[in-house]
Amino acid sequence: MSLVTAVILAAGLGTRMKSSMPKVMHPIAHRPMIRHIIEMLEAVGEQTDHAIKIVTVIGPDMPSLEAAVAPHATVIQHERRGTGHAVQMALPKMPAEGVVLILVGDAPLLRAETVQALLEAHHTSKSAVLVGSFRPPLATGFGRIIHGADGTVRRIIEEKDLAPEQKAIPLCNSGFFVVAAETLPKLLAHLTPSNAQGEFYLTDIVEHAVSAGLSVRELEIPAEDVLAVNSRAEQAIVERIAQDRYRAAAMANGATLLDPQTVYFAADTKLGRDVIVGQNVVFGPAVTVGDNVTIHAFSHLEGASVAAGAIIGPYARLRPGAAIGEGAHIGNFVEVKNSTLGAGAKANHLTYLGDADIGAGSNIGAGTITCNYDGINKHRTIVGAGAFIGSNTALVAPVTVGDGALVGAGSTITKDVPADAIAVVRGPLTQKEGAAARFRDSRRAMKAKKKD
Amino acid sequence: MSLVTAVILAAGLGTRMKSSMPKVMHPIAHRPMIRHIIEMLEAVGEQTDHAIKIVTVIGPDMPSLEAAVAPHATVIQHERRGTGHAVQMALPKMPAEGVVLILVGDAPLLRAETVQALLEAHHTSKSAVLVGSFRPPLATGFGRIIHGADGTVRRIIEEKDLAPEQKAIPLCNSGFFVVAAETLPKLLAHLTPSNAQGEFYLTDIVEHAVSAGLSVRELEIPAEDVLAVNSRAEQAIVERIAQDRYRAAAMANGATLLDPQTVYFAADTKLGRDVIVGQNVVFGPAVTVGDNVTIHAFSHLEGASVAAGAIIGPYARLRPGAAIGEGAHIGNFVEVKNSTLGAGAKANHLTYLGDADIGAGSNIGAGTITCNYDGINKHRTIVGAGAFIGSNTALVAPVTVGDGALVGAGSTITKDVPADAIAVVRGPLTQKEGAAARFRDSRRAMKAKKKD
Amino acid sequence: MSLVTAVILAAGLGTRMKSSMPKVMHPIAHRPMIRHIIEMLEAVGEQTDHAIKIVTVIGPDMPSLEAAVAPHATVIQHERRGTGHAVQMALPKMPAEGVVLILVGDAPLLRAETVQALLEAHHTSKSAVLVGSFRPPLATGFGRIIHGADGTVRRIIEEKDLAPEQKAIPLCNSGFFVVAAETLPKLLAHLTPSNAQGEFYLTDIVEHAVSAGLSVRELEIPAEDVLAVNSRAEQAIVERIAQDRYRAAAMANGATLLDPQTVYFAADTKLGRDVIVGQNVVFGPAVTVGDNVTIHAFSHLEGASVAAGAIIGPYARLRPGAAIGEGAHIGNFVEVKNSTLGAGAKANHLTYLGDADIGAGSNIGAGTITCNYDGINKHRTIVGAGAFIGSNTALVAPVTVGDGALVGAGSTITKDVPADAIAVVRGPLTQKEGAAARFRDSRRAMKAKKKD
Repeated sequence: MSLVTAVILAAGLGTRMKSSMPKVMHPIAHRPMIRHIIEMLEAVGEQTDHAIKIVTVIGPDMPSLEAAVAPHATVIQHERRGTGHAVQMALPKMPAEGVVLILVGDAPLLRAETVQALLEAHHTSKSAVLVGSFRPPLATGFGRIIHGADGTVRRIIEEKDLAPEQKAIPLCNSGFFVVAAETLPKLLAHLTPSNAQGEFYLTDIVEHAVSAGLSVRELEIPAEDVLAVNSRAEQAIVERIAQDRYRAAAMANGATLLDPQTVYFAADTKLGRDVIVGQNVVFGPAVTVGDNVTIHAFSHLEGASVAAGAIIGPYARLRPGAAIGEGAHIGNFVEVKNSTLGAGAKANHLTYLGDADIGAGSNIGAGTITCNYDGINKHRTIVGAGAFIGSNTALVAPVTVGDGALVGAGSTITKDVPADAIAVVRGPLTQKEGAAARFRDSRRAMKAKKKD
Repeated sequence: MSLVTAVILAAGLGTRMKSSMPKVMHPIAHRPMIRHIIEMLEAVGEQTDHAIKIVTVIGPDMPSLEAAVAPHATVIQHERRGTGHAVQMALPKMPAEGVVLILVGDAPLLRAETVQALLEAHHTSKSAVLVGSFRPPLATGFGRIIHGADGTVRRIIEEKDLAPEQKAIPLCNSGFFVVAAETLPKLLAHLTPSNAQGEFYLTDIVEHAVSAGLSVRELEIPAEDVLAVNSRAEQAIVERIAQDRYRAAAMANGATLLDPQTVYFAADTKLGRDVIVGQNVVFGPAVTVGDNVTIHAFSHLEGASVAAGAIIGPYARLRPGAAIGEGAHIGNFVEVKNSTLGAGAKANHLTYLGDADIGAGSNIGAGTITCNYDGINKHRTIVGAGAFIGSNTALVAPVTVGDGALVGAGSTITKDVPADAIAVVRGPLTQKEGAAARFRDSRRAMKAKKKD
Repeated sequence: MSLVTAVILAAGLGTRMKSSMPKVMHPIAHRPMIRHIIEMLEAVGEQTDHAIKIVTVIGPDMPSLEAAVAPHATVIQHERRGTGHAVQMALPKMPAEGVVLILVGDAPLLRAETVQALLEAHHTSKSAVLVGSFRPPLATGFGRIIHGADGTVRRIIEEKDLAPEQKAIPLCNSGFFVVAAETLPKLLAHLTPSNAQGEFYLTDIVEHAVSAGLSVRELEIPAEDVLAVNSRAEQAIVERIAQDRYRAAAMANGATLLDPQTVYFAADTKLGRDVIVGQNVVFGPAVTVGDNVTIHAFSHLEGASVAAGAIIGPYARLRPGAAIGEGAHIGNFVEVKNSTLGAGAKANHLTYLGDADIGAGSNIGAGTITCNYDGINKHRTIVGAGAFIGSNTALVAPVTVGDGALVGAGSTITKDVPADAIAVVRGPLTQKEGAAARFRDSRRAMKAKKKD
């Protein structure tokens, strides 16, 4: 069991995002970027014998970010004086033992296995500092790793300070470091803001370690894990890679995605076995789908649970609080919100179920609307088991339709219907033979008159 | 006229598909993979002077597969003893004359022109055995073709038996062979299970032919034609290529696809000339679309026919048995199932037409629902020609609305309406002046009370 | 201030498009290709000190094209005698001073900055003729640029006249030229139809200029700007590139596109700041979206304006004339056509609003339908501010519901409702205890009988 203190640099404003939200709070797959890092680190803690302590360096006035990382610690970097300065802020919260893992909060694709590889490489190489390196498709814009003849790292040179021949070096600095906890404070103490920006560069710890005769090594990690988000366009690229990972994982677990590129997952989407997902299906946050469920094209699910064997869509919208029972059917142009459907219940066409509980085996006719809102308050609609709600019916909540009851088509139900009763609300029929032709004539005359 | 016996190897279980269905029954573009091969071979028979006899080698307990290839013959491979053993099973059904074409059932992208090229190459090269070869982007995992100095094929070596320098050979074995019918039985008789797997390898016929002084040649075929499906991810890749072929064919025939990548065809989709298809349109099986039809974005069609000049969608769902007449309109959030619409009929908004016949030129108002199901039985709704169904109407089947009749908005119609009549079902109006303010006050009080 | 006469060659029939419409009238991002060129040239005129005069060469019987370029001039090429002949047709409309910019009408991706670069290169190189050159991924099919030893252009050789070694020349002729206005008539006068096609080739002006001792230069421009549309498949490729440009521009302006590849813009779509657009959103022509608007997945907008802070979709369809007020909500399966919604108004579920004016803060219940069409005429529905329309209501136009009025669920409203009144149209309730079981029994008997 070894102690790892993970320091996440997340104080950046992200001005290129053109947003008032802290940069690392922008979501990837509906999860703030910082939460991807936090949950990945928690997973490393669970899957390995490392004890992980997390300290996030945030900017001033970022209460939403502070809340997002809680209960893990935060420290505030009040002045923007560079990455080295940011890590210095975290020093008071770092234990003197174990290792310090330095990460950035805007690279949400970093995987647990990559972090484990970095920790492992630091351990086995017995180096004081381990630098995560990577090989971007185009190196421009990144600091380069400078090796000595013995293969150790001598320096990291920032892009703008590169000699022309150094620009061809393909290996770049990821910004991720593993440093022995006892060594880090000394290395940080040597940093000076003697550069054009007047900032304390974290990368300078490499030179100081080398000067002190300490060993610095690097481990190349996948370029994908290093991708940082600084603009909306970069956010879209990272989102796409994240989505491709979720799609591949879903298929590897035996789900059929009819066109994987058109299925959108949230980071927390849970799919059962033998699930079939059609084209253009969007999963918002907090969706759980049971085994053998089919979700047809053009469906949109958010905050919903779908039990085994249910059939959803096409064009179904499940909103937060929708709980669809085993083998139930939700069909086209149907919206379900904050409602439960029992096993085998069906609502197949053009229906709105809001704040409702529908019993097992009940059939909700096409065009049924639960009137859950009176303009001020919301009320619940209860339909028992085995009931039949005729098409085009309005159920005005609060209202209860009993087990096995039958409501006639086109009814507006404002009072409870007893179990096994038939209830119909319907006006009288007025029928005028031959009147349609006269009506058409009069309306055509009206049209002609308008044109005059 | 030459006789070709096509032997399709289709006994594999496809365990990596994680499914109880035989592997070759998994669909590409809604057609089982094996049916792609069968129909392609039937097309070769129709387009050329070859008589094609098809024999499919299946596993035990695969009745669905047997039915899928009928009336073509099947033989059962009871023990899984390799590809050579599988072909041996088919020997009793092979005529002694002509050639034998050996294919695999899980490579559904094989094209008729490729099969014709293989048959032609076997014929013109006067070889005893012709091997289909291909050049995958990455050769790993495939048997390699070993040539002699004279350009003939000497051997096929399986991946795991390759010498290190042989791994660089780019030309691989497709698994497709053409063999003279009189020669094949002798070659198969030489196979032995003397290998690690203890299986009879079909690829060993090459060595045996060479030993017997027979000529073996290869023809390189496009890598795409060889792509096999062994997992859900591979199924998704093959599906995408198949879709791209259908998209290209549709455009070559003069259809406009606003974004081809987002239109999904079934293998049997038929489009007329000058059809326009918007973004995100899904064709399920058995759809026929006439000339000059426009299908707007987000539409979903399955088992439906659409006559010339009709306009469909956006957000229209045509289900099996929907027959849309010439110039008819089906608009947004409209579902049509097992129903006919006459020429020029319109159902433009939020409507469900199930088990209905709508006459020519009729107008179905927004929010109209046919109540076709009483919880036990389904019944038909008949609307004559030139009728007008007011909005928000429920038509309770069985029911008939005559030609030219007019149904008032919001009616629930349970009895037949005569031709040219006006029918309205409507309750009385209750109106209370100034009452809305009092209602709001009382409901606000209720809300305040709840919070206490 | 310099005078530029832009001659656009647009007489081609585009037979490979299989369409009766002039080729350059086919749309990219809902704008005819020729309009992309015209508006780009107008932008050059506004952004620079060039005065741009536009002359389009069209074929006979193309009134729609003539109208599309108006008020700019057109000349008709009655006989199809080649590109040189087409430019000759425009001579009578060309001023004798300044330069002539020759473009083609079927390359709609040409950018203003590229045109400016061509004009600038002609000016600074002091050449008589400047040829736009480009480097296609595969040069086959294009005329090649032949340079002299001094770097000037000597000739353009058409693909079919190339010597074998000339086929490797990567630099091709874009078909775009800048020529001094005083020189062009003389060069055109030298053209002869002495070639296989019997046509006057514009490209021959290069040789004639060189023979006359004039300097010819080339400027390489991006291959994308040269992409021409000759088939439906090429139209789809150009559409995709155009869409990618609109997507990148939207993101650069601070919009969030959840999956950029699935958002479709029209050439004239206007987005405010901090707009969020979900997956699979289609913008038809003439849409304006204000700041801080969210448009959820699967929405379709056309001819609509959406004011700041409004929330649209998912599955919302805004049709021409929809004007959505500040902070208003349009929800799922809702269609709005030729209607205004005041600030904060809501229509969240399964609703059709056609020819309606909805006041600020009003709530339109689920399943509400405006009955705007009586089969002959269309009428308006007026709902005041702060009104509440109960679910499943039909509003039969012409009708007015006053400010603060409340309509009960399931009502069909045919008469005006005064402000602050409550109006309910509803039939009487018929309720039969225990009758549902008897009904089910009778229907099951009917079903059994049918099967006999």
